[in-house]
Amino acid sequence: MADKYDNLYQHGNLAIIMDGQYTGTMKLSELLNHGDTGIGTTNALGVEMIVVDGLPYGINGKGEVEILDGDAETVPYANMHYSSSNLPTFDLENLNAAQTADFLIAGNELKNTFVGVRIDGTFNNVVARAADKQETPFKKFAEVASSQNLFTKDEVTGTIIGYYSPELYNGASAAGMHLHFLSDDRTFGGHLLEYDVKVATATVQRFSELQMHFPVNSKEFLNNDIEMKMIRDSIESAE
Amino acid sequence: MADKYDNLYQHGNLAIIMDGQYTGTMKLSELLNHGDTGIGTTNALGVEMIVVDGLPYGINGKGEVEILDGDAETVPYANMHYSSSNLPTFDLENLNAAQTADFLIAGNELKNTFVGVRIDGTFNNVVARAADKQETPFKKFAEVASSQNLFTKDEVTGTIIGYYSPELYNGASAAGMHLHFLSDDRTFGGHLLEYDVKVATATVQRFSELQMHFPVNSKEFLNNDIEMKMIRDSIESAE
Repeated sequence: MADKYDNLYQHGNLAIIMDGQYTGTMKLSELLNHGDTGIGTTNALGVEMIVVDGLPYGINGKGEVEILDGDAETVPYANMHYSSSNLPTFDLENLNAAQTADFLIAGNELKNTFVGVRIDGTFNNVVARAADKQETPFKKFAEVASSQNLFTKDEVTGTIIGYYSPELYNGASAAGMHLHFLSDDRTFGGHLLEYDVKVATATVQRFSELQMHFPVNSKEFLNNDIEMKMIRDSIESAE
Repeated sequence: MADKYDNLYQHGNLAIIMDGQYTGTMKLSELLNHGDTGIGTTNALGVEMIVVDGLPYGINGKGEVEILDGDAETVPYANMHYSSSNLPTFDLENLNAAQTADFLIAGNELKNTFVGVRIDGTFNNVVARAADKQETPFKKFAEVASSQNLFTKDEVTGTIIGYYSPELYNGASAAGMHLHFLSDDRTFGGHLLEYDVKVATATVQRFSELQMHFPVNSKEFLNNDIEMKMIRDSIESAE
């Protein structure tokens, strides 16, 4: 049987974010019952979230980092898992993002599975983003992304956390790598758009189970007409 | 928190079936730990499976029905859930398959969720299929489907069991209705291609969680190059 380290938990899905359904549908404190590591966003795209060693950090549209209040915040979309301490470590040096993904995923026969990725080290050419908190009526994500805030940094030491998803699940998740970043000094981070590894160590955690949880008490979720073509086009342009 | 009736369990996915990966990757007895109701197929497409009230029935390529041995059989792809006994019942009369789906799914605001469907009654114009057990090297499913065996019956009393999946998850599951049939006299059934309801009662069970389990110990699963376009075309032509 699968143990807790085999399980990737997901609340919501990427399609509802692309569609502009940003209202939080699960309490953050409840989400945190499903792992000690993860990424996501909060109500109205308030912050890009990264959960490191059980602590939920948020990066807002000004690039400010704060620890989130689990009882006050809600999430429309997030992934969580329990980090295993029994994973082999890979040493990385002078690799760009594509080389890193190729080394970690294809190099470990992981292309058809869901994978938790954690990379600790020093990075160059880091470009991270966070949207401004949105107001209702929410715009589609493609429009939000076109005016998102970008934060850049060189020679920054910190942690990348995120997931690799197989193409088959694109739309439910973001196919390929979906990574967030947080600096060690907790002053810089966001949804990761670009990075190069200077020197780092990485782990990959292969999941045998994806537990998808849907906001079935949300009228908006139940009644929305998701247009698949729009969703796939938006993911391609925004992620 | 979700209880067991909120959970739809899935082993494998539809894409690997379309791709011709028919080798069983989970013992049937283990699958049966995840519910009392479900559908699937067994190793090498040996049978179309339907689990009714905890008992796993198989319909082979000759149309013969047998009870499956959980310790002897393995499954490459299956869905299971625990049937709730607290669901409202819908009376159906003189509806075709499309009308039935529309009434049960759209009529209950279920189009964006995963749903367990059970319909007990008398049916006309029933067309069910089962493939012959395949031999290695396995052919792609589109080719298997073109020579599948069709079984037809009118005025047959029995049980339809299956699932509705939202379009977003097409490829992982079969978007729309995926239903199997078993007659009350246990002599007729299979993967349901066509039916009309004469008179029947139905229940729909909405799931807040989809627990997808992947055969991560299968080298074939890990290394296969799934071609998404082929998968989507095959589902459209074969399902």
